[in-house]
Amino acid sequence: MTSPARKLNLNVGINTTGYLPAAWKYRTGTRQEITDPGYYRRLTELAHKGLFDAVFLSDHPALMTDPKGRPFHTIDPLMLSTGLAAQVPDIGFVATMTSTYNSPYNFARRTQSADIIAGGRMIINIVSSFNPSVSANFGAAPLPPRSERYAKALEFLDVAKKLWASWDWAREGEVPEDRFWDASSAAPIDHDGPYFTVKGPLNVPRGPQGHPVLAQAGASEGGIDLAARHGEIIYCNILSRPAGRAFGRKVRDRAVSFGRDPSGIRIVPGLVVILGESREEALRKHELFSGTGSEDGLIARFVRENGIDPDGFDPDAVLDAERFIPDPNRQQAVGMGLGLADLLTHETLTARQAVRRSEGHHRLLLGTPEEVAEAIIDLWADGTVDGYTLQPPRAPDDIADFVAKVVPILQDRGVYRTRYEEATVRDRYGLPYPA
Amino acid sequence: MTSPARKLNLNVGINTTGYLPAAWKYRTGTRQEITDPGYYRRLTELAHKGLFDAVFLSDHPALMTDPKGRPFHTIDPLMLSTGLAAQVPDIGFVATMTSTYNSPYNFARRTQSADIIAGGRMIINIVSSFNPSVSANFGAAPLPPRSERYAKALEFLDVAKKLWASWDWAREGEVPEDRFWDASSAAPIDHDGPYFTVKGPLNVPRGPQGHPVLAQAGASEGGIDLAARHGEIIYCNILSRPAGRAFGRKVRDRAVSFGRDPSGIRIVPGLVVILGESREEALRKHELFSGTGSEDGLIARFVRENGIDPDGFDPDAVLDAERFIPDPNRQQAVGMGLGLADLLTHETLTARQAVRRSEGHHRLLLGTPEEVAEAIIDLWADGTVDGYTLQPPRAPDDIADFVAKVVPILQDRGVYRTRYEEATVRDRYGLPYPA
Repeated sequence: MTSPARKLNLNVGINTTGYLPAAWKYRTGTRQEITDPGYYRRLTELAHKGLFDAVFLSDHPALMTDPKGRPFHTIDPLMLSTGLAAQVPDIGFVATMTSTYNSPYNFARRTQSADIIAGGRMIINIVSSFNPSVSANFGAAPLPPRSERYAKALEFLDVAKKLWASWDWAREGEVPEDRFWDASSAAPIDHDGPYFTVKGPLNVPRGPQGHPVLAQAGASEGGIDLAARHGEIIYCNILSRPAGRAFGRKVRDRAVSFGRDPSGIRIVPGLVVILGESREEALRKHELFSGTGSEDGLIARFVRENGIDPDGFDPDAVLDAERFIPDPNRQQAVGMGLGLADLLTHETLTARQAVRRSEGHHRLLLGTPEEVAEAIIDLWADGTVDGYTLQPPRAPDDIADFVAKVVPILQDRGVYRTRYEEATVRDRYGLPYPA
Repeated sequence: MTSPARKLNLNVGINTTGYLPAAWKYRTGTRQEITDPGYYRRLTELAHKGLFDAVFLSDHPALMTDPKGRPFHTIDPLMLSTGLAAQVPDIGFVATMTSTYNSPYNFARRTQSADIIAGGRMIINIVSSFNPSVSANFGAAPLPPRSERYAKALEFLDVAKKLWASWDWAREGEVPEDRFWDASSAAPIDHDGPYFTVKGPLNVPRGPQGHPVLAQAGASEGGIDLAARHGEIIYCNILSRPAGRAFGRKVRDRAVSFGRDPSGIRIVPGLVVILGESREEALRKHELFSGTGSEDGLIARFVRENGIDPDGFDPDAVLDAERFIPDPNRQQAVGMGLGLADLLTHETLTARQAVRRSEGHHRLLLGTPEEVAEAIIDLWADGTVDGYTLQPPRAPDDIADFVAKVVPILQDRGVYRTRYEEATVRDRYGLPYPA
């Protein structure tokens, strides 16, 4: 896995005030800037300064109106990415879109348009949606069951790939003087499947990346299938080396079983970093940013969120992994729960230890910039992961901190770029171009 | 209608090589630049130099693969407009979208996102789609009949307007220290109609224009209903003063019958301008750009396109208007045919004269810059039209010509702006803000 050219890939999430719901109280900035495109431009320029591969926008097409919460998904990720790509050079954009509530023709056209406008810097993160608040915005029907959503997503991307390849200027033969084009460079796809009937061709030609890079985040069996068939960048919940190796093996083996070369898969799980001058300071910031206020608060939240009887619970007793395996049939995302179960399967941990290992379901790194850089390199160096998708507790603060303090260490260690070189994110990730 | 402040509104179409299919042979530029966003940036900068209100992108979500034709609708108009808005200041963008093949939640979210990114410069031109090539890209079902498409479009925009107004930062009351927002600034719309069930609220707040300006182009009875209920800018086929006055009266009377104030409607029909040093030169260019090669060629095309028996046809005989009224039940756009019928109803014309009055179904002006400017001002001065949507036969050539030669005359005559003043297209058009 290690070649001289291999570099750590890093994306960074830029949704609204940052990843952790309660951390906004400790951030710089106004509340209403979360719907100001100028704010996202500043975040993207900050990420550009840190030489990130891409900024990442997760999404639900719904507004959660919890008075105690905050809007987290607002300006449409593909629209926002397109506007930002026209303003900020080099950096890529991960835009999340649902395969359940878009038609494949519009999807293929808009994403290819965005990638052409961005000059080959678009990554599309496909989700199948799991939230009833979303389905209520798209008709009276309840959310389809997971198996159906994933079956639909598989066909959705099959159709999109056919459309993305359906018109290619490079297929033009000689064009006579009195003709504008060689129309045989475009051909219908005539797709007729269980979920979609689409004639084609697409009216946008093959783009600078062939098609946008495809990211995928599901960890259920259907999600693994989708990742193995179509995913190029896998965004997931990996809290430890053994769990990460097992996950990577599973996805790559599944890809092989589908006849796909697994070398075109990159694993860049979520990562929450909280920096301090000392580990102690980072621990205190964790308690604040998590909204729990103390280590006891963290443990109380752990007990509550995992449905544990608090009576007589011993935070210093070893946890039983079995107890934490999520129901594979639950409607909400499986991956979020699997991370913890995987961690406890592979490591012996108490609740007091476990609460410091993940935040927002992702790997949590607490400490000095040196300690954090070390831990980042650790799982990357042996190929367990290809990089990370940083989810800053607070934006812009924790992005700025990471760029100022961790990036230079990663560069000094020779594992991270010192300037942008490749023009497309496909090249930057070393991913193959579609045929 | 005439106030000291009243100015001529001008949009300009920037689809691919220009409006006339055969004129590409006489244009500057490469063939493949029609899918290069840099080309559209240059066209938009040219339009910005000419101080146009907006650039206009018509659309079909389908690729017409006629070997003798050319791709005319390619990069998605909303995506392209968003990218261009991030690069070019001041000028507005008319993006065409179909109400038949978009879901209202995605539509409302993406258009409001685009308008926020553009700082209030988006105009959305709603079409209901009439082309079977389009429906074939969106499932196995045939295109719904016109009446159903318009009924659906009416409800589609009703839902969109509710969504656009469903979250507004300005509705926030006092926000306590420990809360991020006043969630009562957002409320569900709970829409449950014959075509759409949408809970809401939208996850994008009210934008700089309240919502994007709505343009509408249909001229069938269903189209007039839609224009009267929701249209703010009406793009139509008006070839003469009496026809224009009758059309304007019809749309405004219909608006009144729906209880709407008709002062919020602007009529900016399509216009094809071909300039020459002399009228004679313009006539010759018309023959070339139309692809017919001569006046006889123009007449032969007229005979063919109108299904006239060429045997013994006299191009100098007066035409009978009745003969040209389009079947109101035909599947394709009605407005394109109505223009000619209206013209012949109000003016006594021969075929030789008629072929010089319209091109691509729009009003055609042939002559010197002075003659053209005069004719543009003529129908505007008395309020028959509020301005025009220029459809240049060739892009960039005929946009550059118009900007260099006609715009200064319009400015000298005091009817056209000499710099951009208003920030939003809504203000520039003097349109009311939604409540």
